[in-house]
Parts: sequence; structure tokens; C-alpha cells
Amino acid sequence: MNRFEHIRHKPPTPLHSPRELILALAPMRSNVNLSRIVRLCGCAGITKIIHCGQGKVDRDIARDAADFVEVDQRRSLLPVLKQLKLQGFRLAGLEQTTGSTCLYQYTYSQKTALIVGAEREGLSQEELNQLDDVIEIPVYGQPFSYNVATATTMAVYEYCKQFPMG
Amino acid sequence: MNRFEHIRHKPPTPLHSPRELILALAPMRSNVNLSRIVRLCGCAGITKIIHCGQGKVDRDIARDAADFVEVDQRRSLLPVLKQLKLQGFRLAGLEQTTGSTCLYQYTYSQKTALIVGAEREGLSQEELNQLDDVIEIPVYGQPFSYNVATATTMAVYEYCKQFPMG
Repeated sequence: MNRFEHIRHKPPTPLHSPRELILALAPMRSNVNLSRIVRLCGCAGITKIIHCGQGKVDRDIARDAADFVEVDQRRSLLPVLKQLKLQGFRLAGLEQTTGSTCLYQYTYSQKTALIVGAEREGLSQEELNQLDDVIEIPVYGQPFSYNVATATTMAVYEYCKQFPMG
Repeated sequence: MNRFEHIRHKPPTPLHSPRELILALAPMRSNVNLSRIVRLCGCAGITKIIHCGQGKVDRDIARDAADFVEVDQRRSLLPVLKQLKLQGFRLAGLEQTTGSTCLYQYTYSQKTALIVGAEREGLSQEELNQLDDVIEIPVYGQPFSYNVATATTMAVYEYCKQFPMG
């Protein structure tokens, strides 16, 4: 008997309650990054993304997640942040800033909105001023920053680890 | 004064010793996935990837990591696994299998070779038989598996968290 045997199409791990994590994205320059984040959310059980700007989800990349993740398109991020705060979400931005907390040590609130800046510009000062926390991921080499979908993947992984059942 | 202020081009976190994690990849179908993994490794301070097959690194995706990460191209994975074992690496495969350990609970050995299967086929039974551990990442929704570069990102993040200084 083999110790490890491949399991194809393993059924997903059931969540005890729906994920309270939502993602709010500044206008992504790349539909590929947006679509990768949609697939990530589908697999992680996250059901809602707010995306600012004119992005289009590529179904070849997002796969079935395109049917399970609601992508709410808005014009700009700042009013979204104010609205999320009123709805009781803790606003955690993903960025390299002063006063940030390393993702390794960060303790998520269950009801969190993860706020993700665009590829080059990141988050504006006005947007940063709305945040409760900034999460930073250590970079150890070149290039000086992770791709935006890669950084989002790490932040979402850490949330799922902290709330493995939803 | 603002609590959070953007830091552009923040210098990388120095490692106390070079990373002992290396990646060994089955033949990737997609050069995009390969190139994303190269960029991930550059940022994470990982200096070596073994890639089986004819992949080509896209510098627009890998960015500066293309100059810092050695991509050693081999014909097939099985002899690579045997060689890595002789070199003292612990072989940890990333896959959905029987007998796997959830990434949330997995304790990495510092000298680890992370073995990553191809997009559709994953790892063969012969390859799985060479492994010391299989690491599995819980999936909570659709599609039933993370993209290969996304899953690799999570596994690399967890290693860096366990060895934040190398």
C-alpha cells in the first residue's frame, strides 16, 4: 500500500459559517491579477469582492470561481472604505507603510475587509487614513515587492489559517 | 502626522543565512505559472528552482527575480528527487493525497525541497513514493484546487513565516 495516494477532485472543506472576510480592490491594471484573485477567493470560500474600476474577469483564469464570487464594481475606493467601516468591518490594508504590522504577527478580526492597492500606485494617503491596520509582508530579495495577487494570496491564506472553519 | 505612510522601494529584509528551501517543479504547462513562481522566489529570498521540462521564464512577469533565481532545467523529476534526498533535503510535496499534513499544522525542516506537481497531472505515484511528507492546503469552495503558483505561494509564505530570518 502506498503511503500517499493522489485524491482527484477532493470535495471542499465545509465552513461552519460563511466567510466574513471580504476584499476591496483598488482599480487593477491587469485583468489577469483581478481574475487570479477571483479564483483565489472561490477556493478560499470568500464570496464577495469589491473592485473599483473597469476590470473584467477572465473565466479561463478564474474558472468556476467566476460563478461563485460576486464581483461588485464601483467607481472609487474611498467611499467604499467609509461604507465598509459603517458596516462594522475592520479595515486592513495590504501595503508597505510606516506603522504597519507584519503579517506573521497579525491577528485578524473575523469581520475584516482586506484592502488591496493597485499594482504600481498602491493605496493613496486618503485611503490609508481610513484604515484600522496596515499589514505588511516581508520581502527578502528582488524585485522589491510581491505581485499584487501573490501578496493577496498570502494575506488570504493567513486569514484562512486563523479561521479554518469560517 | 499620518499614522500610515507609504514606503516606496523599501529595502529587502536581510536574511541571517541563505535560504535552505529549494523548489523542484514538475514540467509546468504554463510559462506564466513558472514565471510567477520565479518572481515569488526572488522576493522570498529563494535562490534556486529546479524545473523539469522546456519552460521559459517570461521576464515581464518574473521581473528582477530572473537575474537572482537560478532555474536549473532537467528532463524529469524522479531522478531529481532521489538526488535531493541524497543531498539531505527533506522532500515535501504539495498535493492532495491520503496521508497528507495540512499546511496550517506543518512544521518545515529548514533544509526542505518543496516538490510541486504540474497543473493538471500533479505528482505521479512514483514521485509521491519518494516524498517524506505531503502538504495539503484546505480548499473551501470552487474550483476544487488552487492554481499551482497560488498554492506554491502559500507554501512558501508558511516556510518564510517559520524561518523569518533564513
